[in-house]
Amino acid sequence: MTVPILLVLEADPPPRLGALAGRALVRYADERTLAAELPDADALLVWDFTSEAVRRAWPGPGPRPRWVHTPSAGVDRLLCPALAESDTVLTNARGIFDQPIAEYVAALVLAMAKDLPGTLELQRQRRWRHREGLPVAGGHAVVVGAGPIGLAIGRTLRALGMTVAVAGRTARPGVHGAEDLDRLLSRAGWVVCAAPLTEATRGMFGARRFALLQPSARFINVGRGALVVEDELVAAVLERRIAGAALDVFEHEPLSPDSRLWDVPGLIVSPHMSGDTVGWRDRLGEQFMELFELWEAGKPLPNVVDKKRGYVPSHDS
Amino acid sequence: MTVPILLVLEADPPPRLGALAGRALVRYADERTLAAELPDADALLVWDFTSEAVRRAWPGPGPRPRWVHTPSAGVDRLLCPALAESDTVLTNARGIFDQPIAEYVAALVLAMAKDLPGTLELQRQRRWRHREGLPVAGGHAVVVGAGPIGLAIGRTLRALGMTVAVAGRTARPGVHGAEDLDRLLSRAGWVVCAAPLTEATRGMFGARRFALLQPSARFINVGRGALVVEDELVAAVLERRIAGAALDVFEHEPLSPDSRLWDVPGLIVSPHMSGDTVGWRDRLGEQFMELFELWEAGKPLPNVVDKKRGYVPSHDS
Repeated sequence: MTVPILLVLEADPPPRLGALAGRALVRYADERTLAAELPDADALLVWDFTSEAVRRAWPGPGPRPRWVHTPSAGVDRLLCPALAESDTVLTNARGIFDQPIAEYVAALVLAMAKDLPGTLELQRQRRWRHREGLPVAGGHAVVVGAGPIGLAIGRTLRALGMTVAVAGRTARPGVHGAEDLDRLLSRAGWVVCAAPLTEATRGMFGARRFALLQPSARFINVGRGALVVEDELVAAVLERRIAGAALDVFEHEPLSPDSRLWDVPGLIVSPHMSGDTVGWRDRLGEQFMELFELWEAGKPLPNVVDKKRGYVPSHDS
Repeated sequence: MTVPILLVLEADPPPRLGALAGRALVRYADERTLAAELPDADALLVWDFTSEAVRRAWPGPGPRPRWVHTPSAGVDRLLCPALAESDTVLTNARGIFDQPIAEYVAALVLAMAKDLPGTLELQRQRRWRHREGLPVAGGHAVVVGAGPIGLAIGRTLRALGMTVAVAGRTARPGVHGAEDLDRLLSRAGWVVCAAPLTEATRGMFGARRFALLQPSARFINVGRGALVVEDELVAAVLERRIAGAALDVFEHEPLSPDSRLWDVPGLIVSPHMSGDTVGWRDRLGEQFMELFELWEAGKPLPNVVDKKRGYVPSHDS
């Protein structure tokens, strides 16, 4: 019996892969060597999930690799037409980031409601200036994206007493369909974007939708940068057509030091960290090992991405 | 029938008092005139609740004023031995600040867990530096102060998935007594002080108790400044004996521009605003009117302060 070849896109060994000794031939590739190694690999672990090299290196039609796993929720950086049309199974890190991202969104909502950015700036200036906060309980939020991350955000905001509508592509119990989105946005105090980036969602938050929002509304993006037309968000914030925004994800990451996004008054910028709590790499390594053991045994894998849609579909049950 | 004299300590009329026309003779005093006016007043509304003038101006034994209301939760600024020993009924703003303060504490906990202060500082420097947040769910918090504010903080932190112990002076169902406090502190990741300031609690958080905390613990004070020995907290934060702190209240308010507290790394300073959400003055005016109507009708008042203890006692029921 030959052991499968597991190719890992990353310079440094991920945690937990020591358990593969004797069960897989683990090879490492970087962006330069990936194309040469990929046709021989049985499985590919895209440990460097920020890389877009898989798109460029994908070998085209053929039996290998049979399985690709990305330790991220979004698959937009690696999904290309050739991979989508192949028989290769693509899995993601569904479940790992739900609770951390939900807490991060709650942190942003509460910080904006209580003007914590203003407090920290005044502290820096040694100025005592009392301000009134906004209540969070009783507020209305719309969460765009009805996967496990969006649902976790909804649960956490509801736990804080907010009224939350979750909107996805297709309506199901507890989730609004895309046809309800514009109506929901026009009533929201808080809009949280946690959608997958697909051709259907790219640029979904642009001038038209920002114009639907109330001037008191605040917008948070923890999905993918390209869901938002950044210039049009900046204009909406600068012109006070919305009350504020927070972006954790950007069209180009890392954000360049000369990006105008860094110093838009009313806009909080953070470096794509919403899902990453202490120990997250260990948890991703453990999750990969659980999937590997199923794959090794020829059992069906969970977290399988619908490659036509670009995300793992959620079901009612 | 003579209408009662209501003395208001404040230059500007509070909201909602227009309804008193014909039912009370409303007079206004400032800190300078209070002593002269107080012996004639049937009731005193300490609308300027930051003032300590009532202590100095209290007329001593006598029938008036029969009722004093402060639109704050704490009564430490006005309660003096002569008032404590009098038959005067003292009421507070119990209930108004519970939910706002609970949300403010949640904002601080989440902001510290996700290093939002670090994010905002890096944004100011236009630097992209990814960091790992701490999970909040599963964390252990101790809330010191078992009045409605402390209980609301406990509920809100529990809603975020934290394990919360609430400690008051006396144990009752769901509340630890003071005898448990040190043991609870030694296990806590988060310590929230929301106790009333009394002779029993003044300086309760000093070097000895900070030494009980874990190096990973964070301390938040939304009670009164003098509950904390500020220099000893600063030392604990600077020497990394605890991981961080946030103070919304201070021994001397407003904090002087040259206070050392403004720029202690790891210490968030805010200007006594935790309970104040948009519309709070209206709500305080409404609450006073509700109490006035009961008082006018000779009915028992709610929110009566136990003047020996220095707060409104909580009961199990």
